[in-house]
Order: sequence, then structure tokens, then C-alpha cells
Amino acid sequence: MTDLDVATLQRRLVAFAEARDWGPFHTPKNLTMALSVEASELAEIFQWLTPEESVEVMSDPDKAFRVRDEVADVLAYLLQVAAACDVDVLQALSEKIDRNELRFPAGPR
Amino acid sequence: MTDLDVATLQRRLVAFAEARDWGPFHTPKNLTMALSVEASELAEIFQWLTPEESVEVMSDPDKAFRVRDEVADVLAYLLQVAAACDVDVLQALSEKIDRNELRFPAGPR
Amino acid sequence: MTDLDVATLQRRLVAFAEARDWGPFHTPKNLTMALSVEASELAEIFQWLTPEESVEVMSDPDKAFRVRDEVADVLAYLLQVAAACDVDVLQALSEKIDRNELRFPAGPR
Amino acid sequence: MTDLDVATLQRRLVAFAEARDWGPFHTPKNLTMALSVEASELAEIFQWLTPEESVEVMSDPDKAFRVRDEVADVLAYLLQVAAACDVDVLQALSEKIDRNELRFPAGPR
Repeated sequence: MTDLDVATLQRRLVAFAEARDWGPFHTPKNLTMALSVEASELAEIFQWLTPEESVEVMSDPDKAFRVRDEVADVLAYLLQVAAACDVDVLQALSEKIDRNELRFPAGPR
Repeated sequence: MTDLDVATLQRRLVAFAEARDWGPFHTPKNLTMALSVEASELAEIFQWLTPEESVEVMSDPDKAFRVRDEVADVLAYLLQVAAACDVDVLQALSEKIDRNELRFPAGPR
Repeated sequence: MTDLDVATLQRRLVAFAEARDWGPFHTPKNLTMALSVEASELAEIFQWLTPEESVEVMSDPDKAFRVRDEVADVLAYLLQVAAACDVDVLQALSEKIDRNELRFPAGPR
Repeated sequence: MTDLDVATLQRRLVAFAEARDWGPFHTPKNLTMALSVEASELAEIFQWLTPEESVEVMSDPDKAFRVRDEVADVLAYLLQVAAACDVDVLQALSEKIDRNELRFPAGPR
């Protein structure tokens, strides 16, 4: 993991959109549509693969590039949704994991 | 932004799934399906809203909770996809922004 | 297959929405969002199933009901998108199959 | 509306896949993933449009072609899901509208 951090990348994305006057397009509604489209583009890479092939997806350089690219697109729109709605994504996830630990207790090992 | 970081949350998600023996279900293929489903659940909150209403979505406490919750779910599955495919999400996003700066030059202001 | 037909069901859906004054919500944009959400709800039923389990999905009465219900929801929104955009769905599909027969020639058997 | 009917198109789609030996790929799970991807491709056409622009989408010949093409793709995968799960789509929709008439009573006009 690099020394990159979410807050810096999020500011970079917001500045990128502002520099291109994309603000009017970037309503929370539109950003969630775009996020959903990008998530589907990631799933599309896997749609005809067997479970076993999906585990090996990164051994194909072309598919590996697409997976990285679509993962980046999903994160890009997720951070823009979060910026538009003033949601701290890391805090939201941390709280969600806390709730899930109560909801799905781990059994004895 | 808190002092939480992506790597720590990602490790916590992976440990959570391992403690529940969810490994066999968590193929990259299945995780991308789940990611896409969660992204749609986030979009669903906005589907009948006008653009103006979508900008104000967080002023409704019930919708605000759902937005935070679904943003967390999307990030949770994205980090699990990334862990399963050994993708560094922050590095992938940083490189994608670099590519987009070449692809969509900002005009003069 | 029953004696039901697409045109009659499509008129029934349009009348249903009109009777509830849902016209302002039913822009093509919003209807495609709702269609995408329903398609994800159908996929969600399958997300943790193995390929073999997915083939047997209808042997579970609860899952079978959900599959039928979500298939109906997808078709409902698809027909409403088509009505809003004045697309003849059966004609569009017939033409698409024609194009695909040229694009993906069947090999010798 | 043409004299085309759903049952004939559905048989044509199934024969098309069989002639190309796509059976092993066409599990219900994979078909629902593909359906969801196509529904997102339809939504993508609209993601940056205002509500007003979305109503006028068919006046742009390029967008109109894409809308028809994606509507056809969604219907194609929906009919293949239905064939794989032995769901009569028109019957399922008719019953769903019946249920919705009880669930969302129309008010007095």
C-alpha cells in the first residue's frame, strides 16, 4: 500500500471536475448512476467466467488492466458521491463493520 | 476525515469474512456481483428524486442514514474485490486520475 | 405461454402509472434507473450461488417466487422505458437478433 | 406493434445460443449478470442528461439507435433468464400488475 490517502485523492477528483465545469452534471443522483454503471463494467469482466477462472483473472494481463481500471472508476465515483453528500467514507465503513459484527456473530472456531 | 485508513479497514473486512468461513463464496466474480448490487441500492435512493431533491438528500435523516450505509457497503465490497485481485485501490485510482488528466485536458479558465 | 401479449400489458402498465399521477416521475432517465435496480435485485438472488445451484434455483419455492417476481419487475420497467421512448420492443429485439446472426456466425456442427 | 410475439423470439434466442455451444456459459446466474450489465448500459445513455433532455432522447438519431439497441439487449437476456428458469414472463408480469393494483390503490380522480 502506498502513502496515498483517500482524502487527497478525493480532493483531486473534486478539483478535476471543477476545472472542467462538470459541477452541474455531478448531482448526487447522477454520480450514483455513474457509480452503478462502473460497477457493472467491473462485473462484466467476470460474467462468463467460472468461479475458478475468476480467481485466476489477474494472470491475464489484458483482464488485469481492465480490473484495475474499473476498480479505479468505481472508487472515483464513490468518492465523488461521498464528497457531494458530505459522507466520510472511511468512518461510514468503520461503523458499518461494527454493526455487522453484532449482526453476524462469528461462530466458535 | 478520521485517522482511519484503507489498508486497516481492508484487513478488517478480510478477517471478518475469514472468521465466518465465507471464503468459498468470496470469489472475485461473486464479489463484483455483490458490489454491483450494492451500487444499485445506493442509486435506488435517488431514482425518483429530481436533481434538486438529490442535492438536498442528506437533509432527510432517514435518507441520510441509508446513503451512508450504502456508501459503506459499496466500499466494503470494492475493498474485498481489490483484496481478492491484489489491486492497490489508491494506487489504481491515482494512476487513473493521471490518465484522465491527459484524456480530458482542462480548458483555459 | 398464455394468450397474454406485450402490447396489452404495456398499455396496462402505462394506465396504472397514469391513474396514480406518476407521470412526472416516469421520465426515461428515471425509468432506466429503476430498470437497472430491478435487474440487480434479480441478480442478487444468484450472487452467492454456485453455477450448479443457480441451475436448480427454481426447486426452492421461496427463491422461485422471488425470481418470478423480479423477472416481472424487470419486464415492467423495460416496457415502460419502451413506451416512454416509443420503442417497439419486439421489433427492436428481432432486428438485434438479425444483426447478431451476422456478427456471430454459427460454425458448422 | 408488429405481429412478432415473445414466445417466437424466445425460441429464436435459445436456438441462437445452442447453435454456438453457449449452453455452458448460460447458467441462470451468468444470464442475470449479463442482464444487469445491459440494463446499466441503457441507463448509461441517460446518466448526465437532465430530466428534460431525457424526455427528448429519441430526437438524437445516434442516441435513439443506442436506446433501441440496449432495450433489445435487455429483453434478449431477460427472455433467456426466463427460458433457463422456466418462467412465463407475460404471465409473471400480469400477476405482478394484479398484486400491485392491491398494493397501490389508485385514489379518486
